[in-house]
Parts: sequence; structure tokens; C-alpha cells
Amino acid sequence: MLEDLKIKVYEANMELPRRGLVIFTWGNVSAIDRETGYVVIKPSGVDYNTLKPEDMVVLDLDGNKIEGTLNPSSDTPTHLELYKKYKEIGGITHTHSTEAVAWAQAGRDIPLYGTTHADYMFGDIPCTRNLTDEEINEAYEKNTGKVIIETFENRNINPLYVPAILCKNHGPFTFGEDAMESVHNAVILEEIAKMARYTENLHPNCMAAPINIKEKHFYRKHGENAYYGQ
Amino acid sequence: MLEDLKIKVYEANMELPRRGLVIFTWGNVSAIDRETGYVVIKPSGVDYNTLKPEDMVVLDLDGNKIEGTLNPSSDTPTHLELYKKYKEIGGITHTHSTEAVAWAQAGRDIPLYGTTHADYMFGDIPCTRNLTDEEINEAYEKNTGKVIIETFENRNINPLYVPAILCKNHGPFTFGEDAMESVHNAVILEEIAKMARYTENLHPNCMAAPINIKEKHFYRKHGENAYYGQ
Amino acid sequence: MLEDLKIKVYEANMELPRRGLVIFTWGNVSAIDRETGYVVIKPSGVDYNTLKPEDMVVLDLDGNKIEGTLNPSSDTPTHLELYKKYKEIGGITHTHSTEAVAWAQAGRDIPLYGTTHADYMFGDIPCTRNLTDEEINEAYEKNTGKVIIETFENRNINPLYVPAILCKNHGPFTFGEDAMESVHNAVILEEIAKMARYTENLHPNCMAAPINIKEKHFYRKHGENAYYGQ
Amino acid sequence: MLEDLKIKVYEANMELPRRGLVIFTWGNVSAIDRETGYVVIKPSGVDYNTLKPEDMVVLDLDGNKIEGTLNPSSDTPTHLELYKKYKEIGGITHTHSTEAVAWAQAGRDIPLYGTTHADYMFGDIPCTRNLTDEEINEAYEKNTGKVIIETFENRNINPLYVPAILCKNHGPFTFGEDAMESVHNAVILEEIAKMARYTENLHPNCMAAPINIKEKHFYRKHGENAYYGQ
Repeated sequence: MLEDLKIKVYEANMELPRRGLVIFTWGNVSAIDRETGYVVIKPSGVDYNTLKPEDMVVLDLDGNKIEGTLNPSSDTPTHLELYKKYKEIGGITHTHSTEAVAWAQAGRDIPLYGTTHADYMFGDIPCTRNLTDEEINEAYEKNTGKVIIETFENRNINPLYVPAILCKNHGPFTFGEDAMESVHNAVILEEIAKMARYTENLHPNCMAAPINIKEKHFYRKHGENAYYGQ
Repeated sequence: MLEDLKIKVYEANMELPRRGLVIFTWGNVSAIDRETGYVVIKPSGVDYNTLKPEDMVVLDLDGNKIEGTLNPSSDTPTHLELYKKYKEIGGITHTHSTEAVAWAQAGRDIPLYGTTHADYMFGDIPCTRNLTDEEINEAYEKNTGKVIIETFENRNINPLYVPAILCKNHGPFTFGEDAMESVHNAVILEEIAKMARYTENLHPNCMAAPINIKEKHFYRKHGENAYYGQ
Repeated sequence: MLEDLKIKVYEANMELPRRGLVIFTWGNVSAIDRETGYVVIKPSGVDYNTLKPEDMVVLDLDGNKIEGTLNPSSDTPTHLELYKKYKEIGGITHTHSTEAVAWAQAGRDIPLYGTTHADYMFGDIPCTRNLTDEEINEAYEKNTGKVIIETFENRNINPLYVPAILCKNHGPFTFGEDAMESVHNAVILEEIAKMARYTENLHPNCMAAPINIKEKHFYRKHGENAYYGQ
Repeated sequence: MLEDLKIKVYEANMELPRRGLVIFTWGNVSAIDRETGYVVIKPSGVDYNTLKPEDMVVLDLDGNKIEGTLNPSSDTPTHLELYKKYKEIGGITHTHSTEAVAWAQAGRDIPLYGTTHADYMFGDIPCTRNLTDEEINEAYEKNTGKVIIETFENRNINPLYVPAILCKNHGPFTFGEDAMESVHNAVILEEIAKMARYTENLHPNCMAAPINIKEKHFYRKHGENAYYGQ
């Protein structure tokens, strides 16, 4: 079932090592079919070199396996929480990409320093709080999803307008309308994170870009009056 | 029309991902035919993998499309302003290359720290001011060109002598006698920007190179008494 | 003899340049056959381009050559000390990989800043003390092994739980149940070392990750209750 | 004439872009035939993609062209000064490799921070002073050679024991018994320079490695009692 979506999720997963975002098995991409409510995700611990489209696991939103012989990624409960909360999300990517992890480990939001950022993300990339002992012991991966949601909600952020978040001392999750768009946003996040680190190298107390840049660049690419393409 | 120039502009555009200066569609190269006054530029939002010479768009200096089925790059008005002002420029490149963007986001000129820089650029690489709200709302891309010109004029810089500039909180534009030379200067700018960042890493209050290095290296490569080649 | 193990040690050595961990001859991998007590190690000073499985040298734990026409790596006495002390180690890798060397030269432990680290290493990566003049003059490579052991023992560390160590002003050794696992840990160490450097770039007085992250991530991958795979 | 040496010098030059030490034409390698006293060097301004062994230029030590249709590298007078002064040098490499240039632009010696450095260079890598106006105007490239010699002599350094030097605000020259060894040392210098920058990142006031490391590592690889190979 959902053979087309499995191929798309497979292709999106394979893009991660190709783009230099993961080594070994350090990442996973999923997508949801909103009609059936089923989620397709990478299996757990399988090497990218041997991964095949038919290895993808199909689950319902409660985490019951619908199809597949392998175990789903252990990050699956995080993905499910996010699909349940945000109907506009069609794909989710999780990686341990170097630059994004560095910001997550530093526990810092990524400031909007320029137009590369503003073209894709309408404001700073938020960093969550740490989970409590109780949250970790009760259901670590599920509560990771809940803390992501808490962060977006507290800051009044629409995850398709800022389709990236950093989990403190962990790493990034990115979002999209489908699996490949979420990977695309993971690539952009990594580049933005690197540019922002270099910017602070050159100017340790650098100010964020003016608000007018943030607004101009986002709205010339998104929404009704969009006209932009390089 | 201008089939040869389209091929040259196409080839110059394709050099950008090959040299690691752009990902996705984050860059554009144009050239001008001074006889007809027509500008050839990359179309908007087309992926480098599928780009073809015949996709290049031909425009006059007022921005009227002369030939082409696709839309020109949305940065076209910036390119046109520069071709109108500087008759000696034959090609223009715009990228979001990582190191140059970092300097632009830090809002800093790149100091002339050594001979690699001095071989190609006769002085610091300038960084422009930000655009005002009025300039953004009236005509963002056109006024980006005007602010570039303002910066060169205020500092009395000939853009073929310092064929690179940083737009604040945005990124670099580079110039050349033709399309490929402007790409060549984009590659050099990125390397110089990286060397300068590393230099400040090693010596936070580093002085610029002595004036005699700036003059010797530029004039041994450029002008009447040039004799240089590695 | 031990032809299968020679192939495994050869393959593990060849992974070093493929993963970007060594240039020239700057690294070596060994493995031990616990039944015979023999160690198989890369020969000294042979280029990776010409290395063959049959070049591997077989030694006993006292350093007597059992088989092989070439000299064993000059780091062999370090490897032997570690195999003698830690029965649970089956493979050892030594490199001069850039990021790990930087921490070793800085003389610093690598703090546990996040889950990428915690998934593989149960705590900070320790850095040894320098050898004394006497230790260097008496038996440099053997005493390098002894100082590694001293560091693990003083800190009460099991080298399969923290399978990496930095020798001060020198570089890393990593461990595994077999040769390839020790290389795998060398790749992970280099990535962790880079992430930690970037983290401090972004937050100079950054705190280590909370203890609960260290424990949760290690035990979900290792031990009886392990369930993890990306 | 000297057809074998031309091939060797050609091969050594081609190693520069392969090792990532140069872009465009930013480097040159030469070698000397001590029997005839003739020097073979890369021609000026020729792209590496089109370079051929027969393009190499043959000169005597006074700079008279003995064979070749192209002009020799404009850095030739620097090479000639060094061959005249140091009879033990057989090959010289000049690059603008990024990390070494950063130290040269910062005007700093590279401290000996660890064994990677100590295995190849017996002490800090020196950085020269700047040339005076008079030295630049009189004979820039020749006087660059003279300032390199002045630096080695003032510090009592044998250029085969520390086969690398940084010209202030310019870049590195490296030395060897033949052309390829000088390139080999250029690769090592770049790696050492990078490791040293990262080391200072991690520990801004880091001390140099103890003297015993410097001596042990150099003499186990060089001289009568050498026994080392990884």
C-alpha cells in the first residue's frame, strides 16, 4: 500500500547522505498520507547503502504498524505528535547535521541575519527547552514532539512559516508540505546555521537584520504577492 | 538572437554550482551585448540541473523582454542599473556564497590582508548600507542596484578595479568584462573572504597589509606594466 | 595464518582515508584474535594506495613477529599494552584526524554537549597527561599505552563505554569489539569533536548537556533495555 | 633536455590542485638539477587543466632561459635565490593555500602544538618580516627570496629541518630534496596550520608542546636513529 509515497519517502531519505547531512544512520524522513491518516517512515538502524523503498514502514497516527517487516525509526513518536498537531505538515526530516547540532548544543535560537534566511524562514529558528526527568522517563521521543509543539505555540509560530526547530542538546527537525520539501528545508537550515556562525565569528555582537528585510524577502517568495525566483 | 552570448551566459551560470558557490537556485549570472544594448540573464527559479542555453532571457536595459519564454531572474533590475551606470562592465554575478554572505551579514568591508586579495582587488571589498523602508517598498531590486552604485561613487571606486561588493545583510555581486570573468571574481571573492575570516581568527586585531603590497600586487597584474602570472 | 582477520584489518585500515580521517600514512588499525592471542596490524610507512591484505603483520602480545615481511606500525607497542589490559577490546584505531588532534593539542577533554555524543560515548572524552622525559626515553610508544590506561583507571572509565581517548599534544585512539568498530568510533569521535568546537564558537561558556540526556541516550542504545536505531 | 626532471616537475605541479592547495593558477613548483645547475619551473599563468610536461621552462641560476617557449613563473627569482643559498634543497613549492595564507596574513609563526607538526618540522614555522618600499621597488620577487633567507639565518634554521616558511601578508614556500617532497611538505603545512588554528579556537592561550615531544618525534623520523613509520 502507499507504494508511491514509499518511493518518495525513500528518495527523500537518500537525499540526506547525498547532501552531506548525515553519516551512518543519523537521520530519518517521514511523510503522511492525509487521506488514510497513515505515516510512512524510514526503518530503524538500516544503513543508507542498503535501504530500499519496500523497507519503509507504514504506521497509523497511534503508532500501530500497518505494513512493513522492519521496526520504524525510534524517533517515530516525535514525528507522530507533530503530524497530529499540524495538519498542514506533510513531511518531516530529522538529522544530526553538524552546524544545526552546534546551535542546538549551544541552546541558542538562530538569529535572522540576512536574506538567505529570510527567503525561507519568517524569523529566528527557535531552540526548545530541555526535557525534564519525568518527560524523559515517561516517553522520551513522544515528549520530544510535545516540547517542539510547546515551543511553536508559546512563540506563536506556524511551522510552515518557520519550518525548522532545534531540540536543545540534540538536533534539528524540519518540515514541509511533503517529504522532499522537509529535506530541502534541512539543507537550507544547515547552510543558514553555518552562515550565522561565520557572521558571529566576524562580528561577535552582530545585530539581527532589519525587520524590513525579514518581511520583504519572505513575502516576495511566499503568499499572494510572491514574484521571486533567483 | 545573441546565441553565442546565451551559451556564454549559460556556461557562466553552470560554473556556479561546479565551484561550490551556490546550492539550489541561489545565484544568477548575466552579460550585456553593448552593440544592441541587450542583456542576457538566467531565468527565474530554474534548477541548474535542467538549465539549457536556450532558457536564457534577453532584455533591453529598460527591462522589456526581447526574447525568451521564461521570466528573467528576479534580481534583473539590480543587474540593469549596474550595466546602465558602468559601461566598462560586461558581466555580473550574484550568489549567496557562504563566506561572502557572512561578511555581508556582519555588515563589514573585507580588509585587504594580503597578496591574494591584492592580486585581484585594489583595496577593501566594500559593504553597502541597508535599504530604507521607502527604497524597499518602491522598487527593492532596482534600488539594490542604486545603493551599490552609491557605495562605489561615495568611495570613488572603479568597479573593474574592485570588482566585488557586498550588499548588507544580503550577499555579493561581482563584475567582469564578460560573464565568465564575473564568475571568476566570485570564486576569488569567496576565497579571499574565507582567508580574511581565518586571519582574524588567528589575530583578532590584525592590521591591513601595508600599502606597498596593495599597489605592487595590483599593478604587476593590471595596467601597462603588468608582468605577472603564477 | 589468520587470513580472515588480515582482510578485516586491511579493510578497516582502508576505511581511514575513505572517511577523510588520514592523509599519507597518518593512521593505523589493528585487531586481536583472542584465541591465539595474536595481534594483526598495519605495516609501518606503507601508502594506503599500495596496501594489500597480505601486508598485514602478525605479532604476539610481547611484540614478537609471528608472520609478515614488513615491519609493524611503530605505534604497535601502544596497541599491545591496551590489548593486554582490556580483554573486552578487539580492535584499535589510531589517527591524526584534524578535529580530534585539535582537542588533544589544546589538552582538553571533549565535553558531552549533546545526544550525538551521548549515543556513543558515556561521558566526556578524556585527554591524557603528557609523558615525562623518563617515559619518553625509556619506551615512548609503550608508555603512551600505559598513560592511556592510567587515565582510564584514574577516572574509572570502561573503554568500551567511552571508546575514545586523546593523547595530549598527539591525537586520538579509539576502540571497538573489532577493527571496523574501532574505525567507526574514530569517525564518530571526529564528528563529535567538530560539533563541540562549533558549539563553543557559538557559546564560549557553554554548559555540558544535562545528566539525564547522557544516561537516556546511552542506555537506549546500549545494554539490556536498548531499543534505539535512527 | 632534462626531460625526466620536466616530467617530475609537471607531476609535482599537478599534485597542487589535486590536493586542494591551489585554485586557478595560484601556485608553482620547481626543481633543480645540481649537475648542470639548471632549474625547471612551471610557466607563467598557464591553467593546470592544459599544462603539459613540455611546457616546463628551463633556466640557469642567473635567470637566463635555457629552454622553453613560455615565460617562467613570475615567482622564479624567489626560487633562484633559495637554490643559490641552500645546496641541500632540490625542490620548492609556492602556493596560496588557505590556512597557511591565514597565518601569513596574521603575521604569525605557527607554534609547534603537537606530534603531527613535530614529525615533519623541527620547531615553529617562521613568518618573515614585510619587505620595505625599497626592496619592493628594486626587485620584488628576488628580495622575497632574500627576506626568506634572512629569516632562516637570523633564527639559525636549516630549511630541510623546518622545510616551510610563511612570507608575511603573502603565503607559504615549502622545500624538499626534490619537487614532490616540497609538495608533500606543502600538504603537511596546510594540515598543521589548520590544526593549530583549531587548537587556538579551543584554547586561546594554549602553550606549545613540551620540548621533549618536539625532539622525540623529529628524531624518531629523521637522522641516524630513525625508526618511525605509521
